[in-house]
Amino acid sequence: MPYSELHRPQFHFSPRENWTNDPNGLVYYEGEYHLFFQHNPTSVKWGNMTWGHAVSTNLLHWTQLDHALEPDELGTIFSGSAVVDWNNTGGFKAGDLEPLIAFYTSAGHHADPPQPFTQSIAYSNDRGRSWTKYDGNPVIGHLRASNRDPKVVWHAPTERWILALYYEDNDYALFASTNLVDWTHLQDLTLPGVTECPDFFELAVDGKTDQKKWVYWGADGGYLIGSFDGEQFEPETDVLKAEFGKNGYAAQTYSDIPEEDGRWIQISWMRGGKYPAMPFNQQMSIPVELRLRTTTDGVRLQRNPIHELEDLYERTESYQNVEITPNQPLIPDSRHDCFDVRVSFEPDGDERFGVIVQGHTIEYCPVEREISCFGRVAHVRPIDKRIDLRLIIDRTSLELFAENGTVVFSCTYLPEACDHPLEFFTNAGSTLVASLVISEIRSIWR
Amino acid sequence: MPYSELHRPQFHFSPRENWTNDPNGLVYYEGEYHLFFQHNPTSVKWGNMTWGHAVSTNLLHWTQLDHALEPDELGTIFSGSAVVDWNNTGGFKAGDLEPLIAFYTSAGHHADPPQPFTQSIAYSNDRGRSWTKYDGNPVIGHLRASNRDPKVVWHAPTERWILALYYEDNDYALFASTNLVDWTHLQDLTLPGVTECPDFFELAVDGKTDQKKWVYWGADGGYLIGSFDGEQFEPETDVLKAEFGKNGYAAQTYSDIPEEDGRWIQISWMRGGKYPAMPFNQQMSIPVELRLRTTTDGVRLQRNPIHELEDLYERTESYQNVEITPNQPLIPDSRHDCFDVRVSFEPDGDERFGVIVQGHTIEYCPVEREISCFGRVAHVRPIDKRIDLRLIIDRTSLELFAENGTVVFSCTYLPEACDHPLEFFTNAGSTLVASLVISEIRSIWR
Repeated sequence: MPYSELHRPQFHFSPRENWTNDPNGLVYYEGEYHLFFQHNPTSVKWGNMTWGHAVSTNLLHWTQLDHALEPDELGTIFSGSAVVDWNNTGGFKAGDLEPLIAFYTSAGHHADPPQPFTQSIAYSNDRGRSWTKYDGNPVIGHLRASNRDPKVVWHAPTERWILALYYEDNDYALFASTNLVDWTHLQDLTLPGVTECPDFFELAVDGKTDQKKWVYWGADGGYLIGSFDGEQFEPETDVLKAEFGKNGYAAQTYSDIPEEDGRWIQISWMRGGKYPAMPFNQQMSIPVELRLRTTTDGVRLQRNPIHELEDLYERTESYQNVEITPNQPLIPDSRHDCFDVRVSFEPDGDERFGVIVQGHTIEYCPVEREISCFGRVAHVRPIDKRIDLRLIIDRTSLELFAENGTVVFSCTYLPEACDHPLEFFTNAGSTLVASLVISEIRSIWR
Repeated sequence: MPYSELHRPQFHFSPRENWTNDPNGLVYYEGEYHLFFQHNPTSVKWGNMTWGHAVSTNLLHWTQLDHALEPDELGTIFSGSAVVDWNNTGGFKAGDLEPLIAFYTSAGHHADPPQPFTQSIAYSNDRGRSWTKYDGNPVIGHLRASNRDPKVVWHAPTERWILALYYEDNDYALFASTNLVDWTHLQDLTLPGVTECPDFFELAVDGKTDQKKWVYWGADGGYLIGSFDGEQFEPETDVLKAEFGKNGYAAQTYSDIPEEDGRWIQISWMRGGKYPAMPFNQQMSIPVELRLRTTTDGVRLQRNPIHELEDLYERTESYQNVEITPNQPLIPDSRHDCFDVRVSFEPDGDERFGVIVQGHTIEYCPVEREISCFGRVAHVRPIDKRIDLRLIIDRTSLELFAENGTVVFSCTYLPEACDHPLEFFTNAGSTLVASLVISEIRSIWR
């Protein structure tokens, strides 16, 4: 059965076949979440970059459609974004539906003859089923190096589109347009240590719609928080870090999720996973909801799995107040391979404790106040003496959420030899597993 | 279907389930090749060491039987060997069949209470289907450190059994016995750089039965060639190297293969393979036939796959005199995953060339006269200007034979992302693929 392969993610998006990398053109319209994705139509390795296309009504069950954008004389189709042009600002509307507009990089190095990278657009008047490239492409000519990855957001107060672009090194820019094709440079900015795939969006702080801040985000999960008046983004922080995992990359947020929903939802590429003997290569993250929250460190971005995931639960085991010791770990009964795990540890002293997932150890050290996960570490503080972790586990990926989603590790893995999928351990003394809820997750493919 | 799992070796032995390591007790009797193997009956990880048991009439199609030897008060059952006691020297015969005698290490550290490692025996009068441990065990008490891995061979001229034993570090010993239970120390010897799992056997040089030499072998594939008069082994070489691969280990040769066959056949543990989400862990090598041959460097051990492998061929592609260039590699049609490949390259200059197997590059460098394979290298000289390689490829293993089997790489792997299972390449100029024969191998499990 397709999608039932041994190393096929069971509730994360992966293409039917061949290579994918960045999620592109994330936009919601008429009941559908669109997920375009960097895709090589002919190989499990990177190349021939094309926009693949899938749609979902719930961000979990995906239907892969025909390819949306294919290489042309300007280049192959690198990453970008999409919006609904509700006001037909670009004049591309034809018919009753609102036009969807895709922004992408024409990767000219891969054209014949080779040429610089430029930014192009395409439009669809049939809910993304077919796309027409704008005949005036590129809409932004070559500016610097391999400039790329346009991400567009509507700025209501000034009634303009704002486009975030990556230049090179740690340099980014912002542009504005009233008509989607003529773009004015607003500013350049630098995110030290951050490269590629900008995202730029506004979120309420602590849910207060009168206290909004803008976030400028880069591919490796570094971000700035600041203010934006339609002309200039003024950072109010240094670069902060949202992604601590070895595989979270090139995250993008959805455009045009209805106001009555009100969420800001992001999907990442899980870069660098291994999928031996599989017809596809690489996968996406679980969609996460983004919030800005005031923490003891100041305002921080928090990312947590979308609530729709709970609709996939099919069996739950829960434990309360279990003392674990080195000789008596907690080994759940489940032999499933997909889980949503919520665990609250209450350490007794300096002992290290954690969970072994498919043979891989995720460990917290109370002395260092540090969690280690697939070779990466992050500081995580106890809250009310407890370390609360959430783990979203698929056949080939593990996403770890700590400190209410301020710390996220997005990781891919292959199972190591193990006799149990999950084991909760401590290395000395005893540790209280104050609560543990393990929900088995049903495959989206059946 | 059992044995059809994605990462299940299709023509190499692996246990139905759980952990294995060293092959043990390799003996032929009454039409059956016995393969005992270090086995953990209850886990995919090492522990509870027990002798698993499988039999085959052709060294390829294996039937796994009940466990042969289980832990007792002397310890768990570590590695060892087996022989047929044709002359009933031990007095264990009961009935018409010859007794099979197993020699193993009683791993006392794992007994309760713990005790030193000792050497024990067990016997079977029903073709290995049931085993009785000798009631006078151990037959060799503790001598040094974790002394272990008894390998026994019959020495016809002196009508004695000779037992090779590992002490510790690079130290080994030889013992002799007329009755299998009383053992006399003959000598100690050191194989610099070599540890564990001795083997000791006599082979004709260049097939001349009047020119025989003895080989003393250790687990990592280092060996000495010398003479043995029944009392003392006199090495005539430094330690030579037969195994260059990252995973060949603990090889053992068969006892009692009939004289009319005349072969000396060896099986290794393919140590360290990864088998994600499989019910078993680890696999054996392809059985190889051992010969001593005079080379330009002197007499050397050559190892090559048993001819029975050819009975598993089911489709063959062959190519002659194909010039490959960097832009025109040779990509065979086959999409199979198990192959016997024989290729003869004729380099044109200093270009590097080789074969990419399931995404892994095996490369020859004419300048260094060196072949690299999964991170290990070996010197390989052209013969008549040609580099002849044989590759035995299973779903999770690759065994590379060069210089007529003087150089062997035993390797495990998981497929990398690749669009073709095999690709023959050169990195510059052109290289002649003088001949290439690719035989697809049928699964032994169907």
